[in-house]
Amino acid sequence: MVATRFAVAAHILLLLASEAGRGTTSLHIAGSVNTNPVVVRRITGQLARAGLVRVRRGPGGAELSRPASEITLQDVWRAVNSERTSRLLPLHARPNPECPVGRRVHAVLGPAFAVAERALGDALSATTLDRLVSDLAAGSAAG
Amino acid sequence: MVATRFAVAAHILLLLASEAGRGTTSLHIAGSVNTNPVVVRRITGQLARAGLVRVRRGPGGAELSRPASEITLQDVWRAVNSERTSRLLPLHARPNPECPVGRRVHAVLGPAFAVAERALGDALSATTLDRLVSDLAAGSAAG
Repeated sequence: MVATRFAVAAHILLLLASEAGRGTTSLHIAGSVNTNPVVVRRITGQLARAGLVRVRRGPGGAELSRPASEITLQDVWRAVNSERTSRLLPLHARPNPECPVGRRVHAVLGPAFAVAERALGDALSATTLDRLVSDLAAGSAAG
Repeated sequence: MVATRFAVAAHILLLLASEAGRGTTSLHIAGSVNTNPVVVRRITGQLARAGLVRVRRGPGGAELSRPASEITLQDVWRAVNSERTSRLLPLHARPNPECPVGRRVHAVLGPAFAVAERALGDALSATTLDRLVSDLAAGSAAG
């Protein structure tokens, strides 16, 4: 579940963008994602705290809080990962400081891993939600 | 443990590169990584199957099977991930095919996620093991 949280978050936003103004409920979203409404509410909460969606109390459901053209996959990635300390490429805990390699391994690997993570983030920032919505529509029209 | 397998694999290779010719044992590696020798042997096995290290039976230990200048972090990444079907940015299982969004979400997200994974891979391929060994030595000299 943790591993696919990013994909589920993107799915939720695609649904909200596709059904703009219709006040999409977590139950409806759960039906589309094919998961539990509790999972949907948890991830929608992360998207709300990141300022990507607004959740109305009661039957109102959720909606995007800014235009789909102003939401990138990097925003989504950050929304579902920012609350944890985990990194995409985490370093291992407590290498041996008595060993010349163990003492320096984090200082050496950390920057290299960070560059790679940044490259992934930059690639994600190039894809906007409205572009994905267009892709959805294009496929539906074709198929 | 799964999450830090990549970092541990890189640590193992750094140690083998730094101690070239000395037949590094899994016990010694485990002391530097500060983990269990069983974990070290499992990851070393993956590196061996990927053609990055050679493991000698008995007390001989492990060694790089090609020059450190010809091993990149992308090679390491692939070595520890190739045996699983898991992707860095996995898609969620079974979205609802009865929903217009659920039906197309994998087709739409898959290519966008793949581009981002490729960007990460390209960044990892720019860092060679010998460059990391140089970074290790530079830090030791300075500190």
